[in-house]
Amino acid sequence: MPVHPLIAELTDAEKASLCTGATFWDLAGVPRLGIEGISVADGPHGLRKQDADADNLGTTDSRPATCFPTASGLASSFDPELLARIGAALAVEARAAGVSVLLGPGVNMKRSPLCGRNFEYFSEDPYLAGELGAAMVSGLQDNGIGASVKHFAANNQEDHRMTVSAEVDERALREIYLPAFETIVRKARPWTVMCSYNRLNGIYTSEHRWLLTQVLREEWGFEGVVVSDWLAVNDRAAGIAAGLDLEMPMSPDGPTRVLAALASGELDRTDLDRAASRVLTLIDRAHASEGPAVVDVDAHHALARDAARRSAVLLRNVGALPLAGTGAPIVVVGPFAATPRYQGAGSSRVVPTRLDNALDALRVALPDRRIDYFPDYDRTAAAAAAAAAEVIVFAGLPENAESEGFDRTVIDLPVEQSDFLHALRQRLGRLTVVVQAGSAVTLPFADHADAILLAWLGGQAGGGAIADLLSGMHSPSGKLAETLPTDLRHTPAHTAFPGDGRTVDYHESIFIGYRWYETRGLPVAFPFGHGLTYTDFTYSDLDVTVEDHTAAVRFTLTNTGEFPAAEIAQVYIADPAAELPRPVHELKGFARTHLAPGESRRVRIELDRRAFAYWHPGKGDWHVEAGEFIVEVGASSADIRLAQTIRLDGDPLRRQLEPTSPTGFWLADPDYGPAVRDIISRAGGGLVGMLLDNPELDFGRHHMLLSMPLNRLGRIDAVDFDIPAIDEIIASAHPPLPADTNGEQPAELDRRRS
Amino acid sequence: MPVHPLIAELTDAEKASLCTGATFWDLAGVPRLGIEGISVADGPHGLRKQDADADNLGTTDSRPATCFPTASGLASSFDPELLARIGAALAVEARAAGVSVLLGPGVNMKRSPLCGRNFEYFSEDPYLAGELGAAMVSGLQDNGIGASVKHFAANNQEDHRMTVSAEVDERALREIYLPAFETIVRKARPWTVMCSYNRLNGIYTSEHRWLLTQVLREEWGFEGVVVSDWLAVNDRAAGIAAGLDLEMPMSPDGPTRVLAALASGELDRTDLDRAASRVLTLIDRAHASEGPAVVDVDAHHALARDAARRSAVLLRNVGALPLAGTGAPIVVVGPFAATPRYQGAGSSRVVPTRLDNALDALRVALPDRRIDYFPDYDRTAAAAAAAAAEVIVFAGLPENAESEGFDRTVIDLPVEQSDFLHALRQRLGRLTVVVQAGSAVTLPFADHADAILLAWLGGQAGGGAIADLLSGMHSPSGKLAETLPTDLRHTPAHTAFPGDGRTVDYHESIFIGYRWYETRGLPVAFPFGHGLTYTDFTYSDLDVTVEDHTAAVRFTLTNTGEFPAAEIAQVYIADPAAELPRPVHELKGFARTHLAPGESRRVRIELDRRAFAYWHPGKGDWHVEAGEFIVEVGASSADIRLAQTIRLDGDPLRRQLEPTSPTGFWLADPDYGPAVRDIISRAGGGLVGMLLDNPELDFGRHHMLLSMPLNRLGRIDAVDFDIPAIDEIIASAHPPLPADTNGEQPAELDRRRS
Repeated sequence: MPVHPLIAELTDAEKASLCTGATFWDLAGVPRLGIEGISVADGPHGLRKQDADADNLGTTDSRPATCFPTASGLASSFDPELLARIGAALAVEARAAGVSVLLGPGVNMKRSPLCGRNFEYFSEDPYLAGELGAAMVSGLQDNGIGASVKHFAANNQEDHRMTVSAEVDERALREIYLPAFETIVRKARPWTVMCSYNRLNGIYTSEHRWLLTQVLREEWGFEGVVVSDWLAVNDRAAGIAAGLDLEMPMSPDGPTRVLAALASGELDRTDLDRAASRVLTLIDRAHASEGPAVVDVDAHHALARDAARRSAVLLRNVGALPLAGTGAPIVVVGPFAATPRYQGAGSSRVVPTRLDNALDALRVALPDRRIDYFPDYDRTAAAAAAAAAEVIVFAGLPENAESEGFDRTVIDLPVEQSDFLHALRQRLGRLTVVVQAGSAVTLPFADHADAILLAWLGGQAGGGAIADLLSGMHSPSGKLAETLPTDLRHTPAHTAFPGDGRTVDYHESIFIGYRWYETRGLPVAFPFGHGLTYTDFTYSDLDVTVEDHTAAVRFTLTNTGEFPAAEIAQVYIADPAAELPRPVHELKGFARTHLAPGESRRVRIELDRRAFAYWHPGKGDWHVEAGEFIVEVGASSADIRLAQTIRLDGDPLRRQLEPTSPTGFWLADPDYGPAVRDIISRAGGGLVGMLLDNPELDFGRHHMLLSMPLNRLGRIDAVDFDIPAIDEIIASAHPPLPADTNGEQPAELDRRRS
Repeated sequence: MPVHPLIAELTDAEKASLCTGATFWDLAGVPRLGIEGISVADGPHGLRKQDADADNLGTTDSRPATCFPTASGLASSFDPELLARIGAALAVEARAAGVSVLLGPGVNMKRSPLCGRNFEYFSEDPYLAGELGAAMVSGLQDNGIGASVKHFAANNQEDHRMTVSAEVDERALREIYLPAFETIVRKARPWTVMCSYNRLNGIYTSEHRWLLTQVLREEWGFEGVVVSDWLAVNDRAAGIAAGLDLEMPMSPDGPTRVLAALASGELDRTDLDRAASRVLTLIDRAHASEGPAVVDVDAHHALARDAARRSAVLLRNVGALPLAGTGAPIVVVGPFAATPRYQGAGSSRVVPTRLDNALDALRVALPDRRIDYFPDYDRTAAAAAAAAAEVIVFAGLPENAESEGFDRTVIDLPVEQSDFLHALRQRLGRLTVVVQAGSAVTLPFADHADAILLAWLGGQAGGGAIADLLSGMHSPSGKLAETLPTDLRHTPAHTAFPGDGRTVDYHESIFIGYRWYETRGLPVAFPFGHGLTYTDFTYSDLDVTVEDHTAAVRFTLTNTGEFPAAEIAQVYIADPAAELPRPVHELKGFARTHLAPGESRRVRIELDRRAFAYWHPGKGDWHVEAGEFIVEVGASSADIRLAQTIRLDGDPLRRQLEPTSPTGFWLADPDYGPAVRDIISRAGGGLVGMLLDNPELDFGRHHMLLSMPLNRLGRIDAVDFDIPAIDEIIASAHPPLPADTNGEQPAELDRRRS
């Protein structure tokens, strides 16, 4: 990116000031040159614009704005087009409030269901989060408001988030924790990316050159501004050098520290120029998009209702839903029916423009049925519920259970709710449970409920959406963007979450979410991708065509039931025989298709080469391994309806070879293998070559030979390996990494450092 | 340790020669001074003395010697006294063969049931392995033969063992992978310790100063020789500097490399002197113990039979065992009845002095019962077995399934065996299955077998021992020293074993074996510590007395059944509420008690302070956390019979504090906490102190305050923290580690380095 033309006219102090917040929510600009600052505001699911005199810890009340469902819900829509519409609506609200950049979306992975901020994040699957995040960013930015994709990266917990070092192996970073960011950067070109609070393998992400420059900019082509999470800056000068352009909020010592580092030579002026240049470009961009805007509050509320409908997941339905328009009185129990949980606590909290509740909406939707309401989970309600023909219990997590700033320690619903639901085992009539929660909860009552609707945190119109779905006015269509486990002990990061305050080891590596449960053979309550509706869909006529390392997947989807509804079909790729462990299968495509009863449609989903690749640490790159892959099409990760095996040629595997690399790795190398083979064939009068070709002669020695470091073969005294020839091969190999890294990862990926 | 008096008389070349093998099995000595070399030999469960002209890859035949059960079996005895007797017998055989040091025992932890060398290792539990290993070392050394405790350390797989870096966090090292070595070093003072092939957190163990010097010698007080595993040396000079005294075997370039490094100044002469001095001391010690010895082959065979009896574990018995002396014919099926699996492949392989088989021994033990034998798992055998009143199937792993040099990829028995046993579901009579295997296997037939005896690899007298137990001549007494899982996918290191050849991440950290299954809530086939016998034991009258941080556990054990038998009672400690995740409970004591029918005995087991401690990474030391502990006494890890809750005062927790440590850690520090508290109390006009004391005012902000790095408090612009006072506290704290480590672990514990 070229340096901004005005940089030459700025003093160092002006550059330092540009790179630091002017207030809690404002950038400084350059007043001397008439460049005004711009404003930013919180709010992935609603604009949180604070007044100037607001509290500076950033979590208090703000101006009214449309509160959409939080990310857990939105992700369950599997609907990029919906995310784009919400992005567009948020852009209008931001513009009307004079805000240029909205601090979202949050695309961190749900490593543990306990993360306090999971309600603000999309999924346990990076492909899904990336596609949805990119759509939301495009929706915002196509309408002139910048996005800030957060929190970059490996910020998957709230406890100790400002000090803990996430210790993550590079494969897990590449395959799980970075791809959502990568997809958004490549597809939607966000104006800004927000670095996180935590350290990554020992280094604060706000000072992590590998992350902020090498990967984000050099590999992915990011051209925007990296902004710190609020108060995430540790050493401002180190941050600028690493690629952190903008510190937020205002800082009592940031600019001073920058100027001192410049003066001492610790910070290079070109680094500061680059950062200031990016901030100036951002400000230019923002001003170019400014203009008046009028918020259509009603239309945005309707959009919020549509979003909430698409977000809710019908987990179970044994003939209870939809509710009939006439019939016996319905007993509704639980405070959330009248006073919904609709968003989480922390920086994302919005003051809604209005607020629906499900009870009122149900009464509107079912005018001919009596609805008796019992707000408390008490004896009166229990007696009424046990005797009723139709019961709807509203359950969910209390407000203080899910928040930015701290993690949960349990995944169960409050005991008064589970006791109440347990007691309803012996009821007379049908039981529907509506669950309002922003993150995964256990549902021990699942087997004896006739229906369960997971409404997530549905935003300000969530109540109306629940009534739309229960009454059958609309068919449910959401599917789980995260697995619902049966037992906290089975979750991937159990015992390794949230760490000890200094470090948190990502022990499970690439195996989070369904990748974990499936690979470990563990039972789950409801699998990733699961969601029911009021009609039936059949899948047929799978056809996969392969070209180079891409594929086009076509199949026919038919609505064979009675209701119009949308089906989210999912494409998973399985790589049954790979050199390194891989998940049982991984989501690599999906399509949401709305069909009328009896309607059929041919669905087409494209897979790029990344869909088949995994990160190969020995190669230091993505790798498509030659051989068979299974292309699966399913209604959930556990409900595969169609499958076709394809064969790919694969990439050549050139590992980063070192003198100490095992002989077997050298033998397998396309360039050096033949020469090594030749040396071995000649050694020991041909006996060693025979052992190499015939492992059954002596499995132990065969393996020992393959695992011996190449530069140690000559130590086997009894066998006359041609040592000079070995040395020559090693010398000619020229390991691709500089000598001081010993062929290992760059220093910034080292664990336990700093 | 003082420098050996002869060092001053040696040339550098003589020192270098002393520190390198003279042959495959011999140390050089100093011929010029009349100091003869000594010999070493393989063999944790039997002496493997090779002739001088033997094959140098080290796994071919050797002179006959008594073959005892391998370590998997011996560990199931939970019998230190037995291990000491075997050590003594091995010493006699070694002395008779002119061998001064026996290369064993192997005390690596069973991280995965797939490790090819598990049959040579004791347990998944470090306490058990340490106690048994110490007894064996004492048995050897009290009889003048040195031990070589191996493989130090974190060598828990065979695949890639010469190149892979085991990436292990320090807590897992301290609590799981090092304690068996520590116990043996402290209790039994072994003459030598053998370093392993692998790297540990990036550094070859043969060059790992932290491991070989800081921990082994400075912390534990080891005064012997560290010898390399055969061909484990990478850089000889680096090894000497790190604490590797002796390279084995002979090396074409070792001494040259040492002299060159001395000349270039890369290696300090004091380092070489120290290594040579230790080798000289070892040679002195060995010569001082030399003398004639006569091996009583019969007595050793009898000891081997006793050992095999104590090693076998009766997993299940629904009225099938012991066999009656009279009755219908017995059908015996399977090749292992006549041709036993009795040891594993690789460097531990012994040529036995004789070899029992179970079939012959059974015929001797049950002279009045006809025994029909079918060696093959074929139709004939199946028909005979299905119709018989009494069937004994001998199952097990084939010879090439378990070996040094490569790992298993499955944990199932061969399919022909499982098919055969599956077909016997519909049999007429009683089914007993005898399993011969050196490592954990799945037993999918367990529910329909009437009895299962796990005979392990029972050594040369294993066949006789099986007959002793099946016939009831002796009661089984072994208990599992490792969990038998139901599913490979449930095992702790699944997907993280054996790594990619460069690294293997010990993802499960401290949670291996029963620690894993219990903490994860996973089903197992047979739990750690499980084993049945022919009588019943009752446990009663638990009494735990606590003094300081030690405890004496007393309880009464009564044989309430009909057979004399030994019971292995186990003491587990649970720490139900700890700051960091801990296993559900951990083995910290055991006692093997033989009781006649009706006999009762008071058992006493002592617990030291380590029994209650865990390794606290933030403190960098062992830590006993104040609060309640549960002392459990059980017949297995899953069969706790008695429990008593005790309360310990605990240790003060002084974390290694850094400027960036969370404010909450500073507040909790006994030294600096009050001053930090004071600053917070005064800030924001007292509001921040109120928030600190009353989390319910705002959980999110309360946690944010506690998690904020202390040196970043001043950045919160709106709150007037006393920054100079904070700086003063930080300055006075003097973090205990040198500045260049940033308060983190020493470089040699860094992961991903080198």
